[in-house]
Amino acid sequence: MYIYSENIYTPKGFQDGYLKIEDGIIKGIYPEVEPNEEVLDYSQNIILPGFIDIHLHGWATGSFTYEGSSKSLRNMSRDLVKSGVTSYLATTGTDSLDFIKFQLSEAKKAMDSWEPSLGAEVIGIHLEGPFINKEYKGMQKEEHVLNPSIEILENFIEIAGKGNIRLITMAPELPGSEEFIKYANKNNIQISVGHTAAEFEDIARLKDLGLGGFTHTYSGMRGFHHRRLGVVGAAMYFNDMYAEFAKQTGLTVKPEAFAIMYRLKGPNKIILTTDCVGLAHVNYEFYHYVRKQTFIPQGDYIKVVSEDGKEELMDKYNYEQVKDLEMNYLDSVKNVVKNVKASISDIVKMTAENPAKYINLYDKKGSIEEGKDADVIVVDDYWNLIDVFVKGLKQNIN
Amino acid sequence: MYIYSENIYTPKGFQDGYLKIEDGIIKGIYPEVEPNEEVLDYSQNIILPGFIDIHLHGWATGSFTYEGSSKSLRNMSRDLVKSGVTSYLATTGTDSLDFIKFQLSEAKKAMDSWEPSLGAEVIGIHLEGPFINKEYKGMQKEEHVLNPSIEILENFIEIAGKGNIRLITMAPELPGSEEFIKYANKNNIQISVGHTAAEFEDIARLKDLGLGGFTHTYSGMRGFHHRRLGVVGAAMYFNDMYAEFAKQTGLTVKPEAFAIMYRLKGPNKIILTTDCVGLAHVNYEFYHYVRKQTFIPQGDYIKVVSEDGKEELMDKYNYEQVKDLEMNYLDSVKNVVKNVKASISDIVKMTAENPAKYINLYDKKGSIEEGKDADVIVVDDYWNLIDVFVKGLKQNIN
Repeated sequence: MYIYSENIYTPKGFQDGYLKIEDGIIKGIYPEVEPNEEVLDYSQNIILPGFIDIHLHGWATGSFTYEGSSKSLRNMSRDLVKSGVTSYLATTGTDSLDFIKFQLSEAKKAMDSWEPSLGAEVIGIHLEGPFINKEYKGMQKEEHVLNPSIEILENFIEIAGKGNIRLITMAPELPGSEEFIKYANKNNIQISVGHTAAEFEDIARLKDLGLGGFTHTYSGMRGFHHRRLGVVGAAMYFNDMYAEFAKQTGLTVKPEAFAIMYRLKGPNKIILTTDCVGLAHVNYEFYHYVRKQTFIPQGDYIKVVSEDGKEELMDKYNYEQVKDLEMNYLDSVKNVVKNVKASISDIVKMTAENPAKYINLYDKKGSIEEGKDADVIVVDDYWNLIDVFVKGLKQNIN
Repeated sequence: MYIYSENIYTPKGFQDGYLKIEDGIIKGIYPEVEPNEEVLDYSQNIILPGFIDIHLHGWATGSFTYEGSSKSLRNMSRDLVKSGVTSYLATTGTDSLDFIKFQLSEAKKAMDSWEPSLGAEVIGIHLEGPFINKEYKGMQKEEHVLNPSIEILENFIEIAGKGNIRLITMAPELPGSEEFIKYANKNNIQISVGHTAAEFEDIARLKDLGLGGFTHTYSGMRGFHHRRLGVVGAAMYFNDMYAEFAKQTGLTVKPEAFAIMYRLKGPNKIILTTDCVGLAHVNYEFYHYVRKQTFIPQGDYIKVVSEDGKEELMDKYNYEQVKDLEMNYLDSVKNVVKNVKASISDIVKMTAENPAKYINLYDKKGSIEEGKDADVIVVDDYWNLIDVFVKGLKQNIN
């Protein structure tokens, strides 16, 4: 199969040609094709590597964080392609060890049985906790917070399958962190700093052991002061560390605060994620302090009560009804484009190249190059999504 | 008179030649000189424009802020050249209107009677207050804080002499600020934001009326938070506004915090000052919370008591005894060179070009160019001061 476009974005810049895909793999870009070959013609639209969301708990009709099941991942995968996400890390939260272990086994199941017809690929697991600091727990559950433990991690790896845990968000100031970070590093697991009470000096001291970046930068970490720089100061100062940003709604992080970090680190060290949770699936009555809405689960439905008393009942498994509960990846990208005047190249870095490099999957994902998975999206000049391919298979995005 | 060097820094880059000075004015740089002309040969040393300190209350043997007299400015001028400062703004504090008026008349006297043999030139006045916010008063006196008043400013201008007030530090969120800023702007007076409880949004709204920059950036202003960016966030975000930094000891602002702002704004929008007060001349018992020392005035002497009980008695008017009480301009520059790897060109911008532009004196000061005042310093490759010229007159710097 060939995809034709005048604007195929590759690490060497835009190319005009026929992108050849065989068995789900990119074979190259050619100036012409043999007659009778299947060609999908996107002429003047833009072909980019698909978005990789490395911090995602749930989306629309599924929630890995609330339901924990492989089915939840299936639902997420099916709907994620509708906003340009072609692969993601199934992200756990700070829960009981039993529940996390259940999630890990379910994630493994989803990964083992995944195929392109199911939508976005689950490419691994991101453990957000339980090794975090209670002081900066945010929406994580305090009662399940633990100090870093290599033993627990070994057990997690055993359940999840070797190589499947790709990223851990942790508080590196906790006792036992040094050994833990070294162990993770040795096992090819990236460490992000998050939900942490660390000081600037802790990050400075530990970073070279294997701290790659910061989870939902600005949130869940000690803020910046000019005499006590905190983790925010470390994110601003250490140019070799990545800053992950969750969806750019402007609610959790003001656009200007994002712009400041963007100017400091540049597109090469920013990773865009959504940190969506699949709000429709919350399994307890829950007040969302940013949205200022209460979510009340009612069987297959979720009731959303706003501060003005307005109530809305939604079918949890109906994509159209729940898709606007959280900002999707593509809309977040559009906001970044607007707020920092990011170019297509900048966006590709932040949405595909950087996340793939960060979790050590750049040999397979994150760019349009020969030998890589054919995870590509087609957009127009206004970032409207035209089509999505996962390992060469065209997805249903309507 | 000619000054020869292989490295004369001009806005067009380094030049090798003979810098001709006549009647205190730079005439140009020439490849050779007529025989029998006076030539000072600095061969491989570096010739730069002298430092301009736009935020300086006192220095070593004199304190305009404590003594308020033209004599204090004379003492400061004589000793400032020893650290490369060739001109400065006599800077008032938030004091009683009577004392400020006394200072203004004394500053005028010093300016009217100044000549190059007296050392660094007083090129104007910086009013730090009294139009500041009590909430962020820092070391300013709360009881003398006032809301902005055009009437008071008119009176100040009358006493100081038209054109002599060149800079005002104020809190732009105070009532009456809009009209005040416009009035100052019309009268060619620059406004710095400082000692302020303003929000990011206040700065965004008011900046184009005539807010040029920030006084001792980070200190005396609302800090940065990603949902409430404060004045620090405004300093980080608005690239067209200058950030003034007081001496780079690392005590009031950590070197990394300076580095972050430096990366955001670049050398074109940073101004180095000292904000020295002439600590030896404090006229009341005073605990310095950054130095953690108590200063006790005793006639012509000052007793400095450290936390460990160590006492030192110094002669206020003996330069050698008091010169180390505060970090001087040149040592601050050396720290900046070290902390952000600033080039000579970067330093010239931050110490001479930018301050001169900021207070509208770039037609006369701030660079080595034909027609400008011959305020130049000679340094070696390690920023050791070799010689200082003020309006062409070689100064005693020992």
